[in-house]
Amino acid sequence: MEVTRKNYKDCLNTVYSAIEEADFLAIDGEFSGISDGPNVSALTNGLDTPEERYTKLKKHSMDFLLFQFGLCTFKYDQAKSKYITKPFNFYIFPKPFNRTSPDIKFICQSSSIDFLASQGFDFNKVFCHGIPYLNQEEEAQLREQTEERRNQHANGVGTPSFISPSSSKGSSHVPEEHKDFINKVVEKVEALMVNSEKTLDLEPCTGFQRKLIYQTLNWKFPKGLHVETVETEKKERYIQISKVDEEERKRREQQKLEKEQEELNDAVGFSRVIHAISKSGKLVVGHNMLLDVMHTIHQFYCPLPEVCFAYFKYGAKMHFRYKKWQFHAWYEMYALFKVVLFFFFFFFFKDIQDFKEVTMCVFPRLLDTKLMASTQPFKELITNTSLAELEKQLKESPFKSPQVETAEGFPSYDTAQEQLHEAGYDAYITGLCFIAMANYLGSFLTPPKAYISARSKLIEPFFNKLFLMRIIDIPYLNITGPDLQPKRDHVLYVTFPKEWKTSDLYQLFSAFGNIQVSWIDDTSAFVSLSQTDQVQIAMNTSRYAESYKIQTYAEYIQGKQQEKEKQTTKTWGEDSWVKPHYTCSTTSAFGYSRMRKRSISPMQGEQGADDAQITDGWSHYSYPDTTGTKKMKTDDAANTKAVESKTSEGWLKTTDLSDSPGLSPAPDDEKSPEGTNPGNDADGTVPWQQTPTVHKRKGQKKKKSEGAESTPTLFEVPEVW
Amino acid sequence: MEVTRKNYKDCLNTVYSAIEEADFLAIDGEFSGISDGPNVSALTNGLDTPEERYTKLKKHSMDFLLFQFGLCTFKYDQAKSKYITKPFNFYIFPKPFNRTSPDIKFICQSSSIDFLASQGFDFNKVFCHGIPYLNQEEEAQLREQTEERRNQHANGVGTPSFISPSSSKGSSHVPEEHKDFINKVVEKVEALMVNSEKTLDLEPCTGFQRKLIYQTLNWKFPKGLHVETVETEKKERYIQISKVDEEERKRREQQKLEKEQEELNDAVGFSRVIHAISKSGKLVVGHNMLLDVMHTIHQFYCPLPEVCFAYFKYGAKMHFRYKKWQFHAWYEMYALFKVVLFFFFFFFFKDIQDFKEVTMCVFPRLLDTKLMASTQPFKELITNTSLAELEKQLKESPFKSPQVETAEGFPSYDTAQEQLHEAGYDAYITGLCFIAMANYLGSFLTPPKAYISARSKLIEPFFNKLFLMRIIDIPYLNITGPDLQPKRDHVLYVTFPKEWKTSDLYQLFSAFGNIQVSWIDDTSAFVSLSQTDQVQIAMNTSRYAESYKIQTYAEYIQGKQQEKEKQTTKTWGEDSWVKPHYTCSTTSAFGYSRMRKRSISPMQGEQGADDAQITDGWSHYSYPDTTGTKKMKTDDAANTKAVESKTSEGWLKTTDLSDSPGLSPAPDDEKSPEGTNPGNDADGTVPWQQTPTVHKRKGQKKKKSEGAESTPTLFEVPEVW
Repeated sequence: MEVTRKNYKDCLNTVYSAIEEADFLAIDGEFSGISDGPNVSALTNGLDTPEERYTKLKKHSMDFLLFQFGLCTFKYDQAKSKYITKPFNFYIFPKPFNRTSPDIKFICQSSSIDFLASQGFDFNKVFCHGIPYLNQEEEAQLREQTEERRNQHANGVGTPSFISPSSSKGSSHVPEEHKDFINKVVEKVEALMVNSEKTLDLEPCTGFQRKLIYQTLNWKFPKGLHVETVETEKKERYIQISKVDEEERKRREQQKLEKEQEELNDAVGFSRVIHAISKSGKLVVGHNMLLDVMHTIHQFYCPLPEVCFAYFKYGAKMHFRYKKWQFHAWYEMYALFKVVLFFFFFFFFKDIQDFKEVTMCVFPRLLDTKLMASTQPFKELITNTSLAELEKQLKESPFKSPQVETAEGFPSYDTAQEQLHEAGYDAYITGLCFIAMANYLGSFLTPPKAYISARSKLIEPFFNKLFLMRIIDIPYLNITGPDLQPKRDHVLYVTFPKEWKTSDLYQLFSAFGNIQVSWIDDTSAFVSLSQTDQVQIAMNTSRYAESYKIQTYAEYIQGKQQEKEKQTTKTWGEDSWVKPHYTCSTTSAFGYSRMRKRSISPMQGEQGADDAQITDGWSHYSYPDTTGTKKMKTDDAANTKAVESKTSEGWLKTTDLSDSPGLSPAPDDEKSPEGTNPGNDADGTVPWQQTPTVHKRKGQKKKKSEGAESTPTLFEVPEVW
Repeated sequence: MEVTRKNYKDCLNTVYSAIEEADFLAIDGEFSGISDGPNVSALTNGLDTPEERYTKLKKHSMDFLLFQFGLCTFKYDQAKSKYITKPFNFYIFPKPFNRTSPDIKFICQSSSIDFLASQGFDFNKVFCHGIPYLNQEEEAQLREQTEERRNQHANGVGTPSFISPSSSKGSSHVPEEHKDFINKVVEKVEALMVNSEKTLDLEPCTGFQRKLIYQTLNWKFPKGLHVETVETEKKERYIQISKVDEEERKRREQQKLEKEQEELNDAVGFSRVIHAISKSGKLVVGHNMLLDVMHTIHQFYCPLPEVCFAYFKYGAKMHFRYKKWQFHAWYEMYALFKVVLFFFFFFFFKDIQDFKEVTMCVFPRLLDTKLMASTQPFKELITNTSLAELEKQLKESPFKSPQVETAEGFPSYDTAQEQLHEAGYDAYITGLCFIAMANYLGSFLTPPKAYISARSKLIEPFFNKLFLMRIIDIPYLNITGPDLQPKRDHVLYVTFPKEWKTSDLYQLFSAFGNIQVSWIDDTSAFVSLSQTDQVQIAMNTSRYAESYKIQTYAEYIQGKQQEKEKQTTKTWGEDSWVKPHYTCSTTSAFGYSRMRKRSISPMQGEQGADDAQITDGWSHYSYPDTTGTKKMKTDDAANTKAVESKTSEGWLKTTDLSDSPGLSPAPDDEKSPEGTNPGNDADGTVPWQQTPTVHKRKGQKKKKSEGAESTPTLFEVPEVW
């Protein structure tokens, strides 16, 4: 169903109920660009840390507009044994809703626009009929403006009619040059009071003059008048004065109140859909969804980049606002929510850890089909994880085409007639991919099951892991826990003159056999050697070099960490007290806090010295700004093991799932899946193995003697793009 | 005629000949936004200097995209006694033309997009079928790439086929890991040479591998082979090798050369239209055209903002490029032109003076219909100078609807059915407005003339003066001379805490009667007093104020000037030697240099001490970076007079034109207007008068006693917006 500004209000309840009844939701976004900074290969260095990647995306991708949002809801119909889908394709555009509203600027990247154009994207629908939206701060500001007007009325200062916010602090006396004008208005109103006319239209005038009129009339005629600002067709504003009795006056004000509320809701616009998705706590499925998630939060919740500053400002305002609001019962809950949200944003939303926590608040359960398809047991079966190819492959054996039916009244998509890069269609086939892969997991059960619910524990290992494009050895960003820290002791950080090309690096390292170069910028790159023991030799030979410089990866990370600590200490000082006490309110309603806790429960007894600390899943995560230690440096084996075991995906590494004792007997109870067999996922605790071999390109000669052979590769990340 | 990427190449000759035959051209642009910085009221302060306004527009408006360009050519048909028009509406979009081409990012402003959407603008046509373009630097780079490939071929290094630019500097030996691959290719080619096949398709491979193949094959098989990179449908690149005799090889290369040239022209795209307009030297008419001119130059010639840096870089490259090009006869002229252009851009394009000079090079004759309509004798007759209203008013008496006819094959516009904000339509009615106003001037002649040509001296006073929006006392930016420097000694520059509102300023200056406030930013504003003699009193009373600070306008300008000089000295040092020697090559072909010289010729004998310097129209313009003096400070009467007289619009001030001795006998010879009566415009030398009264708002009480009354207002600028 195509949703634009024209039919948005009529559709909203349909959207709400579709979300309400769904088993899971699939989403997809289309943007006006990807990167306004470096080219994509620099944006996605193969040896980025998750934090680096997040920072780059935040810096270089958030000024684009998410202008099409696809939502497809999937509800399983037991009787029909098939999913009923409701696909929505929303067109989004920040149309300014009035003269004081923010005038959003966004960047377009010609390559992205050209690509969408070649796919038949309808830009007119976006720009002419896109649904507006507000983020949380803009919404709060608008509510505050509305509230201020109401307060003025309640205190008898003015009517609830419009007073321009910029002039609201003005002096209450009438300046000399306006006295004539105001006196004439008063004369006209006095005439109105005694003649038979019901209303009086004044000439269009300035905002300042209107303010003076309001003040004067309120003071001179406290009763019996209704004063309102009206706009002509030419957008000129003038004041209309009506004689009214008290009842009529109240009726009009009630009308005005309702109209204001409706306008406010209209302005919040599409954000209400995102709020509904968030509040539902349902599983949200996406394909390669990191940018979708970042953009959604950035656009409809709070801007990612300047969040520290924005929310500091916001904080001061919120406190003030809250004090005013507490007198208004129906605002109280909203205000409380906002204050909590603010403190949360303010103290937490600084780096990737903060992003993870906000993400968990907004989308408590995420699943990335690209990550799923790149993981055992699918990675052996799926050669190309791009959405279109994945969808095709999942129609073939050993997978089964999922049984789906489009709900009545929704136009049905035909997967044979590809409509790729329409967000609604992409969301739809992302959902299909998820169903096909989830059901495939059911074939490993004894007895096999043809249908696996979105609530099944079988898919839990894939929760909240967002695919990381083109990172060689870190397949995903782990939203609910610490990220993988692969060994990178075969990696060198090399700086050199900007004239150097890849071939210069090949030449420099020609003595060390196969290398892989990951460019960082014009004057630096990572060079991965095939054998770790060559690192020291390379370091030694470079000692007296003048044109270039070599550091180990550990030294490089340490340098960056120290840089960061310096900055962090400056900014945050001793404010770290709030950090560990955060609780996520929106998730608890769905028993998710329990689930999350379970999914990150530690493998007790597997670790040695770390046992005492492991009381929650977060204890191993390094907070550089609170502890000041350098836990990020290349991990020793024990540390890696401890971190990895907590991801609880042990079963993924067993290539034959039917052998897994934890899975075969698991009753896949869709009704209350969270409660059953809480101990199951403690099985299969083979630690997650890093894959030092993946840095080699296909087509390069493999040297059988290399050190990587000693650690068997159980989870190998395919090279994408 | 609507022109998109689809029909662009077919239309180009039509466009060229329309420009060629035209008497004048009208243009209009539509942009993706207006200001990405301050809001419009801060962007257009009523007391900006022309330089300040230009700097603000440059900084805050150049990142938007000019995505629709309207061009309407007007050719007078003597027989029919009417203009034949050819309107074109070009859709423009920087579609990347290949993988190494610039990926342009541009900003969209939601209010502007929303406005265009409400006017029925077709964004799909822009984004899906917009004509690409290149600016001069991009074009030069592309030519350089092409040239490099050709050179490699000429020197026998490679075939003219594609070699990726990034790999072109690589080492020439085959790295160890590619030796197997290359050896296999050589084996295959050896087989090809002896078997009956004509061509051999290799597997798709990387750019580096393709480069190795080219090098190896050129070395091993210098003759009898044609090697070419071909792209599959999936955009994978592979190498195709064909056995050819020498003749066939040459034929293929000639084909390739022609294809390259065509691709290059395609990439330059819409810029070719602008180049044709520029080369024609024809009068270019626009309505409120400053932003149109700035955008056109910025987008199709050279970026305005970072020009110093870009062209420094460019300079080094150009020199290198030129040295290579001199061996290629047909590039030589082009290269010379580029080098001249570069030096010109590099040394001149720093501030508003540089902008003026570039503008004169690109558009040697401009006329702004908004400025014309705001000037005597039109300003008394025209109440609203917005394009739509102007067009309507010029249909009524005393004006006459111009006689126009759309050329055969062009869809005709109906002015009754307004298609405003379609650039082609806006250009068309801008042309109509110009014709109506020009013809009106003919009614003052004895005998009156119904038709006034675009080459008539009657319109020369309006040449090259671009309307300045919302500046109280400077109606236009004077492209061919120094700008007006109105007396602003009734203006105060006030700084204050950011909490202050307009009402605080009214209160502060309540003792001084009427004031007008022009906000600069949160903490500063200009305050214009109604009487100059009050300035000193205001200054005295503020001496001990702590919360605010008052400076005279002269002090303010002096401070800014000093600031600028400091920066300029740092950047430019003693490099000013090139400044005065610039000559504009493109204009001379049309005798324009003479015309320009004439139109800015000084009124000799009118000035006193300055006589000796006045050998060209530029001598009075202050170059702060070369002279180091502070000529910008508030002008004394004599200086003002000297500057103003050079604008040679004296006749404009005589309200009854028929009284002007210089005009009535002037033979309006359309054939050779530049040559006749060169002395005529030296008449009517009443100095341009400033209008100290215009800073008062309508609706304010007029105090009859104010000092402004002493200088009669002959040219009063209407308040716009």
